[in-house]
Amino acid sequence: MINSNKNPQVKNLMLLQKKSKVRKEQGVFIVEGIKIVMETSFERLEKIYISESFSKIDEYRGFLESLKYEILSDSIFATVADTVTPQGILAIVKRNIYSVEKIITDKTKIAHILVLESLQDPGNVGTIIRTAEAAGVTGIIVNDETVDIYNPKVIRSTMGAIYRVPIVYSDNLSDDILKLKREGIKVYAAHLKGENAYYEENYRQGTAFIIGNEGKGLSKEIADLADCYVKIPMCGEVESLNAAVASSLLMYETMVQRLKG
Amino acid sequence: MINSNKNPQVKNLMLLQKKSKVRKEQGVFIVEGIKIVMETSFERLEKIYISESFSKIDEYRGFLESLKYEILSDSIFATVADTVTPQGILAIVKRNIYSVEKIITDKTKIAHILVLESLQDPGNVGTIIRTAEAAGVTGIIVNDETVDIYNPKVIRSTMGAIYRVPIVYSDNLSDDILKLKREGIKVYAAHLKGENAYYEENYRQGTAFIIGNEGKGLSKEIADLADCYVKIPMCGEVESLNAAVASSLLMYETMVQRLKG
Repeated sequence: MINSNKNPQVKNLMLLQKKSKVRKEQGVFIVEGIKIVMETSFERLEKIYISESFSKIDEYRGFLESLKYEILSDSIFATVADTVTPQGILAIVKRNIYSVEKIITDKTKIAHILVLESLQDPGNVGTIIRTAEAAGVTGIIVNDETVDIYNPKVIRSTMGAIYRVPIVYSDNLSDDILKLKREGIKVYAAHLKGENAYYEENYRQGTAFIIGNEGKGLSKEIADLADCYVKIPMCGEVESLNAAVASSLLMYETMVQRLKG
Repeated sequence: MINSNKNPQVKNLMLLQKKSKVRKEQGVFIVEGIKIVMETSFERLEKIYISESFSKIDEYRGFLESLKYEILSDSIFATVADTVTPQGILAIVKRNIYSVEKIITDKTKIAHILVLESLQDPGNVGTIIRTAEAAGVTGIIVNDETVDIYNPKVIRSTMGAIYRVPIVYSDNLSDDILKLKREGIKVYAAHLKGENAYYEENYRQGTAFIIGNEGKGLSKEIADLADCYVKIPMCGEVESLNAAVASSLLMYETMVQRLKG
């Protein structure tokens, strides 16, 4: 059992929880909690850590017998966990590397893509990834200024969808949007200047939606690349919707149009 | 200028930020930031507090001239503010008291009501209130076990909608749902057992949606009161949507149906 915070593995876990750069260098991220650890595929699993108390829970004995893991004292586990009341199990998991090409060349699915520009709130981004899986999104492209999708709060908000939705980190968002357009994917931006309401467009063919930063919206450079602006009507004095809510309305409109045929 | 945390007003502000019970007893809540303070109506305003630094900002001099306020030293202001980087202005504001009767007897609007049972996440509840205003919701009913809607995090997430959406605290949620039904309002519950998808129902007449707790969903007692269950279709392995996302889809479906006529 590890019970020192000077242990190199413990130090590394703390860095992985806090530093986006360290996660990127090692090509991994951390998942916490029994449910998501059980959903992890063996090929992606690097290492499991459990707390001493967790190792004594009868219910998980069978599950633990088939795995290799490291036991941390409860106080050390609490130090490395990101949650306030940790369940006592976490894992280091390898990232999947996707490219825009890989997403758009999957011809078995009609493209349904989300492009996120500089979103900052981890809860919003996690919720968008969770909803994206539910709405059948075929890929998400995020720029460098978007909050790290491997941030523990993002991971938690995805409720496991982080494993299942292809997500691409874009070095050049403009270039990647142009790649979508060259494939015949129609690019929409949610924008207050939209002429049509979002439900008046047809999303049955390849479709991508660009979503901008929570406070500032889309940059002009990126907004200019859209084929079409759509607006989400709003009553009252509301100036904008939450970014996760706006994205969800667009994704579900697309899903429902395709379901209806 | 107040510069002691033993000052009774400072003590009261700290209690109001932290204790739902104290907010309730005094019938008030706190709003923070220049934008929401400026949106506050005089009839609801109890008192404004600003930081010493804020009092010196030229831009707000005109605004401050027309008001009475108390100046707190910057360090005391930071103590009473809920935000990490406070703008330097907050206000104590009176609550509006609504009743179910008041909401449903407004015959100028077709009822579009949201019933929240035991929602726990302040960000979710705030986002729901914000989206509700945008979607033209005519009232929200929440039970006692729902997170306090006057919690500072809820207020912040509403982006001002807390002032504009009628919200009723229900002592007896079952009774209040029955009152809606007696008025001819059709009560829907978002439920995995729903037979029809949410977009297959007609919400042009008086409509209410019941939304359950993030983890546990609706209690059987409340779910049984619904006239109809609707499901939100989901691809992939997602088990449920975020509560704010699910509510938003239902509210916007209602709004869009009514806009289309």
